[in-house]
Amino acid sequence: MLGEFLGTLTLIVLGCGVGAGLNLNKTMAHGQSDWFYVTFAWGIAVTMGVYVAASFGAQGHLNPAVTIAFAVAGTFPWSQVAPYLIGQFLGAFLGAVLVMIQFWPHFKATKDPKHNNIGIFSTVPGIRSNPFNFLSELIATFVFMLVLYNLGDFTTGLKPVVVGLVIFVIGAGLGTTTGFALNPARDWGPRLAYTIIPVPNKSRAMWDYAWVPMLGPLAGALLATLLQMTVK
Amino acid sequence: MLGEFLGTLTLIVLGCGVGAGLNLNKTMAHGQSDWFYVTFAWGIAVTMGVYVAASFGAQGHLNPAVTIAFAVAGTFPWSQVAPYLIGQFLGAFLGAVLVMIQFWPHFKATKDPKHNNIGIFSTVPGIRSNPFNFLSELIATFVFMLVLYNLGDFTTGLKPVVVGLVIFVIGAGLGTTTGFALNPARDWGPRLAYTIIPVPNKSRAMWDYAWVPMLGPLAGALLATLLQMTVK
Amino acid sequence: MLGEFLGTLTLIVLGCGVGAGLNLNKTMAHGQSDWFYVTFAWGIAVTMGVYVAASFGAQGHLNPAVTIAFAVAGTFPWSQVAPYLIGQFLGAFLGAVLVMIQFWPHFKATKDPKHNNIGIFSTVPGIRSNPFNFLSELIATFVFMLVLYNLGDFTTGLKPVVVGLVIFVIGAGLGTTTGFALNPARDWGPRLAYTIIPVPNKSRAMWDYAWVPMLGPLAGALLATLLQMTVK
Amino acid sequence: MLGEFLGTLTLIVLGCGVGAGLNLNKTMAHGQSDWFYVTFAWGIAVTMGVYVAASFGAQGHLNPAVTIAFAVAGTFPWSQVAPYLIGQFLGAFLGAVLVMIQFWPHFKATKDPKHNNIGIFSTVPGIRSNPFNFLSELIATFVFMLVLYNLGDFTTGLKPVVVGLVIFVIGAGLGTTTGFALNPARDWGPRLAYTIIPVPNKSRAMWDYAWVPMLGPLAGALLATLLQMTVK
Repeated sequence: MLGEFLGTLTLIVLGCGVGAGLNLNKTMAHGQSDWFYVTFAWGIAVTMGVYVAASFGAQGHLNPAVTIAFAVAGTFPWSQVAPYLIGQFLGAFLGAVLVMIQFWPHFKATKDPKHNNIGIFSTVPGIRSNPFNFLSELIATFVFMLVLYNLGDFTTGLKPVVVGLVIFVIGAGLGTTTGFALNPARDWGPRLAYTIIPVPNKSRAMWDYAWVPMLGPLAGALLATLLQMTVK
Repeated sequence: MLGEFLGTLTLIVLGCGVGAGLNLNKTMAHGQSDWFYVTFAWGIAVTMGVYVAASFGAQGHLNPAVTIAFAVAGTFPWSQVAPYLIGQFLGAFLGAVLVMIQFWPHFKATKDPKHNNIGIFSTVPGIRSNPFNFLSELIATFVFMLVLYNLGDFTTGLKPVVVGLVIFVIGAGLGTTTGFALNPARDWGPRLAYTIIPVPNKSRAMWDYAWVPMLGPLAGALLATLLQMTVK
Repeated sequence: MLGEFLGTLTLIVLGCGVGAGLNLNKTMAHGQSDWFYVTFAWGIAVTMGVYVAASFGAQGHLNPAVTIAFAVAGTFPWSQVAPYLIGQFLGAFLGAVLVMIQFWPHFKATKDPKHNNIGIFSTVPGIRSNPFNFLSELIATFVFMLVLYNLGDFTTGLKPVVVGLVIFVIGAGLGTTTGFALNPARDWGPRLAYTIIPVPNKSRAMWDYAWVPMLGPLAGALLATLLQMTVK
Repeated sequence: MLGEFLGTLTLIVLGCGVGAGLNLNKTMAHGQSDWFYVTFAWGIAVTMGVYVAASFGAQGHLNPAVTIAFAVAGTFPWSQVAPYLIGQFLGAFLGAVLVMIQFWPHFKATKDPKHNNIGIFSTVPGIRSNPFNFLSELIATFVFMLVLYNLGDFTTGLKPVVVGLVIFVIGAGLGTTTGFALNPARDWGPRLAYTIIPVPNKSRAMWDYAWVPMLGPLAGALLATLLQMTVK
């Protein structure tokens, strides 16, 4: 649990920090709009989260959808699912809080709700559509898990870097519709933090959308597990 | 065949997804124009396709030109060529269909044929010229195969990442003329999908050009095979 | 000491050279503003510094905060701290001098103090705020050290490349506020060089800010050491 | 010699192709100006050149300055220097010819001498200054060789990728002044090809500058060799 907690914290503090740097006023990256950068940095943030988690003996899922899918597949004990999930959500929450402290004066300097918004922390779709947003998260997570299942043990050697490249290319290829949550903890932890921490000039947390990045990734991960168990 | 099918599906769903994200309205990457990003993401999409294919016991060619060249070179059995090719074309077709589902509302929102076009799925040359387009695909695939032959076994360890870097640098160095098909399945599978699936606001599939990404890569791969067999 | 000297020199001549290329007139990268490029290049500059340092038998800290934290953690002998620190500051100083020679005609051609400024060599915050700038450097270095501690031995094989990716992602996620010094030598060595070398058209060296990139990284590194020693 | 020939051909056809794609009309990358892309693609082009050369039993220098420096250092036999150099210059020449064929219609479509110029093939400094241009190539090659000497055997495993990252970061940090030739063959081979091949709309080959990318890299490589032999 400690490993998943610190790993997910690392992932979120680095990943959400990228969004803060692009959106908030007077940062070094303000106004730059570059999906290559966003997806590559998120990928390497996951890489570092995996290294940190693995170093504490965790498996570095950093993602409830992955943990549950592995439990369904029979490669992860059900008894460990709850502690892993708690570690992941707590780590994601605290990572987002650290981003708020890191960028506090920049939140203060960003009064425009177009830039100071939930999108820094959690996913918002380009076109709101319940069935297609759900389908988008499902397909993206399905392909993500398909690759992950066939990568081999991903915590040893340089494999965490390859995991980062998976995240990058999923974000590049399938993430431009909903912003590729892929991961309920990655979305809900920071969304909760944005809701309850009195960060300056914040706008609304859009909880009405939050069921999509919760259920879409779960459905996609389970579907990939089903396919993998069937064909292999 | 299953490995080549799933590997090519992975490659195409991620690669063509990049083009959709750049061209269609209201995506996170809409309007960004960055050849570095396009070529790097296509490269890493190939990386992931190779991992998936290899995990199912396939060699991860993902490309009829590679399969045929290896058969000519005597390092791949002729009896396996037909199943590999079928797997590759089917995987490319289905990968493109998944991209259409993923981006359906964005296709609907993109009425401009300049952006909603076959270029998202298949290659279109910058300057149309039968001899030079053919020559371009020939030279690009020739250099690609020259490097591939001298990389060593490319499915083990981190070698799939190096294969991705090969695709990146071929796209960067030689792909700006015709869009570097290099691969008949990568071009024809998605072109067929764009032709028969009633995706909203689509424009024409330009089959009159399709012989180039079919014959150019084949010619280039065979020429590299000839050179390799002669000098080595 | 020689290894740390040459390694830090390598890091600074490459890293500060990136800033010079972006800011000074008539360079190949003049006017490009791309935080992805800045952070990725700084990361790989650190990679190369680690390779050079390790080749001379040094541990490739290249950073007084890292050296002192490792001494506090008990994994580095206190007797070696002073020579390492001297090597790091001298290397950083001389690396900056080499950048000045490399770009001398471009400094001459850049009369605008907005571009010909200390920011090429040392860090300047986006929003000046003593407590938050200090906190920013503290948090960024804390996360950096947390990852570094859990990466395993970082001088062997391809691990220096992973160290480079750590620097990249820290710069991307947490570096857009203060410019991620993370390292007192990286900041003070070039700042001293900019102060005393009569480089054409230079503006002021902003020593009033220099305590932040000195004390912030030290505090963050020590905090991460404390956490690491407590939980592991 | 064959390995150095094919390796340098690979390096140049990919590297110079990047420049053609950015400069010539109606390419997929036309008008994009991104030093990150240029330097990263050149780096990976070198990576692939090293793989190809090494596969034919060559050491993958691809660069007369490296070959001569290694001979001076005593780690490469003087008897092999002439064949290596011939292979390198011939490979660079033929690589440039392939780029011309690849982009022939695009050369035809580019009448503006600002874009259709020698800079696609060979280096041109940002500010012309004999002493400083020489010094720039000297310093850049010096740092390049310093890193190269301390990287360990660079043809095995994934080390060619690290060599590519060295080229990238040298180009980023020290290449924005003269365009980082670092390599007499890389500069003279393509310059000769641009001079004698009747490529459409070409402008002048600027041979008056060519002594700099010949002598600067040689001086820098020898200086680094001297330092390395002294301190190690």
